Amino acid sequence: MKRTFRITPLQTDILPALQQAIDQKTKPLGALGKLEQLALRIGQIQQTLEPVLRHPTVVVFAGDHGIAAEGVSVYPQAVTQQMVLNFLAGGAAINVFTRQHGLNLYSVDAGVNGELPNDPYLLNRKIARGTRNFRHEPAMTPEQCAQAIAQGAEVVSQMGQAGCNIIVFGEMGIANTSSAAILMSLLGDIPIEACVGRGAGLDDAGLSHKTQVLQAALRQHAIEPDPFTVLTTYGGFEIAMLCGAFLQAAAEGMIILVDGFIVTSALLVAARLYPAVLEYCIFSHLSDEAGHQKLLNLLHADPILQLNMRLGEGTGAVLAYPLVESAVRFLNEMASFASAGVSTKQ
Amino acid sequence: MKRTFRITPLQTDILPALQQAIDQKTKPLGALGKLEQLALRIGQIQQTLEPVLRHPTVVVFAGDHGIAAEGVSVYPQAVTQQMVLNFLAGGAAINVFTRQHGLNLYSVDAGVNGELPNDPYLLNRKIARGTRNFRHEPAMTPEQCAQAIAQGAEVVSQMGQAGCNIIVFGEMGIANTSSAAILMSLLGDIPIEACVGRGAGLDDAGLSHKTQVLQAALRQHAIEPDPFTVLTTYGGFEIAMLCGAFLQAAAEGMIILVDGFIVTSALLVAARLYPAVLEYCIFSHLSDEAGHQKLLNLLHADPILQLNMRLGEGTGAVLAYPLVESAVRFLNEMASFASAGVSTKQ
Repeated sequence: MKRTFRITPLQTDILPALQQAIDQKTKPLGALGKLEQLALRIGQIQQTLEPVLRHPTVVVFAGDHGIAAEGVSVYPQAVTQQMVLNFLAGGAAINVFTRQHGLNLYSVDAGVNGELPNDPYLLNRKIARGTRNFRHEPAMTPEQCAQAIAQGAEVVSQMGQAGCNIIVFGEMGIANTSSAAILMSLLGDIPIEACVGRGAGLDDAGLSHKTQVLQAALRQHAIEPDPFTVLTTYGGFEIAMLCGAFLQAAAEGMIILVDGFIVTSALLVAARLYPAVLEYCIFSHLSDEAGHQKLLNLLHADPILQLNMRLGEGTGAVLAYPLVESAVRFLNEMASFASAGVSTKQ
Repeated sequence: MKRTFRITPLQTDILPALQQAIDQKTKPLGALGKLEQLALRIGQIQQTLEPVLRHPTVVVFAGDHGIAAEGVSVYPQAVTQQMVLNFLAGGAAINVFTRQHGLNLYSVDAGVNGELPNDPYLLNRKIARGTRNFRHEPAMTPEQCAQAIAQGAEVVSQMGQAGCNIIVFGEMGIANTSSAAILMSLLGDIPIEACVGRGAGLDDAGLSHKTQVLQAALRQHAIEPDPFTVLTTYGGFEIAMLCGAFLQAAAEGMIILVDGFIVTSALLVAARLYPAVLEYCIFSHLSDEAGHQKLLNLLHADPILQLNMRLGEGTGAVLAYPLVESAVRFLNEMASFASAGVSTKQ
């Protein structure tokens, strides 16, 4: 992996002043619970008592996976391309929720197995028409993986230049829970059986088959479990781009709202390379995909929402966005006991 | 209690068509988790496949409590009045969150112990300047309690006439967790020790004192545990108005977003009088106030959010509002597999 990232650990000097500002608001101490923790973290990331969320943006990275040929998903591979077209037409869940909350939405062709149209909201960063089937050969070459990481970083830089300081990453890719499960297993040292889930809706027989395929894939490649090699061997183009996107967003000091299982698996890779990336992350939701709770535990993450969702696209993170905004707003807009003339504790 | 309410249990005929509409959206079956349950319930309440949220409104009922004289809160009684002034000035948490999401906000003087100004967003429904101290005598007369229930219902009718079809109730009243704990204990047949909590921030000694006061108050009055008598003896003006407000909102077919501990205790009274009121309720959040989980269990409620909040005012419900709106929007706006040309399961 050629590209390097300069990620600054957060300074802590401002925390006492932030805590004091929060405690002087007209409410019992601590009564806004997790919103207070969010306000602290956001103030710390922006190093200010008056944080601002600018140009909130969702970037959905889409790619296809050779492992889909092994029958590990209930949906055919064509759905990846079809869903990107659905994103461009405005009909997917992520479109509905970004419209509701006024977030920008871009899709990225990281490696979809099919042609996609020219569209101002689609960024063409295609590495290849899908990865190779990691049941038999490495998913990517090291050059492809490094290229994908660099492309993910460049997409984030582009968003930063447009004024974005809070970003959500989503993904679309039939069979990509298989990649995510293996990344989690190898980098988290967790048995693959505890990482595999039903994805878009496998039944018991399908889950059993998927588990056997992933077990065989793990036996197939004798690799060192360093993050880059694991990502190259078992990842996906969209997952590698997500990894680069996380690292660049942290390097640019953005607030990062983390979505579900696949996105978190990419963050695990990023965090194994640059642990400080986690300081810029807000975990949005606990997915219903089986391995997500353990994956969040690995990252010591306590997500905001638990809605039994398992859709991907960045949807969980966008649903949590208004709560992040509420944290910023209460810090900026609430009266203090002194300014409102409200009595303090007896 | 003189006033009666005509609350229609929800019809179920529309549920299969709603479920089919949800399942045809471009997402794996069930992948939107709790949002799908919300969409089902809202469609059922409005008896349509295309529900609409109109004039979402928050009504905060405020009242004072004689029991405050027993030192059961960390804040002085004057804070009730001061916080209502804060609501009118726009500086409280509920103001911030209703502004963020475009909800209307009204305060109601149900029985604040002090003068309040004329203000278009303050409804003067004052029963008296605070209840009596239920450590020694019943909090209200039966006439006052019936009057408060009727006033709460009238306020909701007023909102309905203005076009509101989704409503949030909040409350403000120093010492009102004491009333709520006793209502829960008597109507839920739960030991008072499991219902008492720290309110706005009691320490261990304060919690112990509050528990002893409430135990003594329970011994003081030998009453039948029927809902109206319990409410009269141990309730508050704002809690009785909340009870009437819940019943009228259900009678008018509104969607009701239920806030935290005190509001839920008022709903418990309402549900003991008219069980069908619960069919119109969406439970927004689990409060950090100690008794709330058991109180929700009594009502078989599974709230949307758990943010460790304990502020009241309706804040938890307003923070959940965008998720309710997301449920309505995905049902109305998402493409179907057929309309988007996306392949279904293999």
